[in-house]
Amino acid sequence: MPNISAKGLRMPESPIRKLVPFAEDAKKRGTEVIHLNIGQPDIKTPDVALEAIRNFEPKVVAYSHSAGFQSYREGLATYYKNAGLQVEHQNILVTTGGSEAITISLNSIMDEGDEIIIPEPFYANYNGFSTSAGVIVKPITSSIESGFALPSISEFEKLITAKTKAILICNPGNPTGYLYSQKELNSLKEIVLKHDLFLIADEVYREFAYDGKKHISILELEGLDQNSIVIDSVSKRYSMCGARVGCIVSKNNHFLATALKFAQARLSPPTFGQVAGEAALKTPASYFTEVIEEYVERRDLLIEGLNAIEGVVCPKPSGAFYCIAQLPVDDADVFAQWLLEEFSWNNKTVMVAPAAGFYSTPEIGKQQIRIAYVLNTSDLKDAITIIEEALKVYSCTIHTK
Amino acid sequence: MPNISAKGLRMPESPIRKLVPFAEDAKKRGTEVIHLNIGQPDIKTPDVALEAIRNFEPKVVAYSHSAGFQSYREGLATYYKNAGLQVEHQNILVTTGGSEAITISLNSIMDEGDEIIIPEPFYANYNGFSTSAGVIVKPITSSIESGFALPSISEFEKLITAKTKAILICNPGNPTGYLYSQKELNSLKEIVLKHDLFLIADEVYREFAYDGKKHISILELEGLDQNSIVIDSVSKRYSMCGARVGCIVSKNNHFLATALKFAQARLSPPTFGQVAGEAALKTPASYFTEVIEEYVERRDLLIEGLNAIEGVVCPKPSGAFYCIAQLPVDDADVFAQWLLEEFSWNNKTVMVAPAAGFYSTPEIGKQQIRIAYVLNTSDLKDAITIIEEALKVYSCTIHTK
Repeated sequence: MPNISAKGLRMPESPIRKLVPFAEDAKKRGTEVIHLNIGQPDIKTPDVALEAIRNFEPKVVAYSHSAGFQSYREGLATYYKNAGLQVEHQNILVTTGGSEAITISLNSIMDEGDEIIIPEPFYANYNGFSTSAGVIVKPITSSIESGFALPSISEFEKLITAKTKAILICNPGNPTGYLYSQKELNSLKEIVLKHDLFLIADEVYREFAYDGKKHISILELEGLDQNSIVIDSVSKRYSMCGARVGCIVSKNNHFLATALKFAQARLSPPTFGQVAGEAALKTPASYFTEVIEEYVERRDLLIEGLNAIEGVVCPKPSGAFYCIAQLPVDDADVFAQWLLEEFSWNNKTVMVAPAAGFYSTPEIGKQQIRIAYVLNTSDLKDAITIIEEALKVYSCTIHTK
Repeated sequence: MPNISAKGLRMPESPIRKLVPFAEDAKKRGTEVIHLNIGQPDIKTPDVALEAIRNFEPKVVAYSHSAGFQSYREGLATYYKNAGLQVEHQNILVTTGGSEAITISLNSIMDEGDEIIIPEPFYANYNGFSTSAGVIVKPITSSIESGFALPSISEFEKLITAKTKAILICNPGNPTGYLYSQKELNSLKEIVLKHDLFLIADEVYREFAYDGKKHISILELEGLDQNSIVIDSVSKRYSMCGARVGCIVSKNNHFLATALKFAQARLSPPTFGQVAGEAALKTPASYFTEVIEEYVERRDLLIEGLNAIEGVVCPKPSGAFYCIAQLPVDDADVFAQWLLEEFSWNNKTVMVAPAAGFYSTPEIGKQQIRIAYVLNTSDLKDAITIIEEALKVYSCTIHTK
């Protein structure tokens, strides 16, 4: 039998995947599992997007341009302008989700063995994209004590080598919900310019900034045009994860021309998804007002509830729809499995994502979990009670992997 | 300004792309351009697929399973069984088009610097996928004189090194239209088993086999289960290129589990496209009968017409909807540009794909072009006349790049 690749062996599994069989077993036993582990919002996709798909009557479902339909790119440019960002359609390459936007970006700027610095905890799939591109992740740990603020510039400096090609941030952050300040972004700009690096910002949660705070895009940082690559997606903005439509935004023409070559090889992004994405640009502002109100209500309920549990610490996030909570357990991985295998409250339990999978440094974040508050407040209330009751029982028993 | 990657510099441009501005200029001058250069069929997408999209009314356009909707995978398994292939849904990983199926397969079995043998001329994007994966293409030239039959086993043996991990074929072939015989596939099986290689077969044109010949899948080759990887797609089968839905089929579980890790990183294939793809499985047999009749009529018209032109040689393909024609010109690239820049007949001209872009060996195929017969017979008749008249004029003038 021929061997698979070393890259394939290195490729990480989803940090949640090993828990899936335990969740399935719990459901088979009749226990309801409240899923706090996935970033799939329950928010309705805007009608305007679904209507466009229902009214789409092509003779042939043809390829689009490799960079995406021009009409869609023009619509996206207007969307960015409305957000205060000076972006033209020539600065945009439509991709198959934010995932492909990252893969194409990494391939365009990094070679096998090159290094990328990412503040951790970070979106677990950054590990997969990096492994796939042959790129080495150099994590820089942000602490729960600081609410996951950007580590100091000196910490970044320590990690920079001749192999360092880029810094990648997610803002607002998955899994932390942290929203970077102007000052933090200025620090990143400084180090990126000093060392001639690319700054890649995953800004797919742009709209989800709370408490009157405003999301600041790296596209607003003056003098950074040649270094900035923005990753975007319709997935979370319009609760349309399955459309698989995202984009790369950059004013670096050499980079975009290179990215287009990778895009040409895969022919085009999905036509149906682009039709929905283009229509979604007409989503009324009231949609976001309502969605943000909903997320804020959920967040406030969740964070207050979690922090009221003895031994639990959960910084209040200012954006996205995730939080990281520290639990009074030795190993959140073992606890998460135990929740599914052995615990239930009113015949319900919760599935959480152990946060270790969001750290690249071994042994860090072992006491932490990530929660996505993409469920209604009633389920979230139950979830808080379940975690509270579970911790009471768990602390009185001995657990091993 | 930070540098792009060496991989990005190596990434090939589309072989047709440099001709696009000349086609645009011709259109601006009022000349009609008949596009023989693209594999985008003009055949109507089956109603059953389009209807499914119009009737798709989800509350949330959610991610599917990373391997694709189970119902779709089960439907695909039935499709393969109906084609005489013993495939279960567990053998299938749904991908974002055949393009992603190839990329994931290469990443799963090959590392930076590993080698893949591909009979040339081959689908130009195999170069792009290989470059993207850091893989080196070792071409093995099939000749127009033999109608692009598989080169002999001894030719393959000469290329095999410790770095060789796979052989990749396209059957029926793009750009040759060649359909491999049982004997040829047996030869491939022999060499693959002898050297413990993977055999990747791009079988997206499976249905398009003519003259009573039957397409033979590598999945039918006994004893090859652990070595076989089939690439498939809905793009050409249902004239649904924009859906971006394909799949990997393999009975090698270790390979598929590895491929799934790459699939998990990018979350899921497109939901809309999968809905259309699943519905398209119910396309009536009469659709294919009609489409195949149409392609055979076009092929016969084209091949007869081209071979009737003095100095033109064009083997008759048995499958797909492409042919490679040898022209009495020194450099088909220069000729193709001249057709767009300087020639017209009844205010029309043609855009062809110079075949050199389908060869990896330099200087081979320079006199050849690829034609996709995805146009109606009226346009094809005009196209033949244009090529004939153009060659008369061209032979009397001097051309340089």
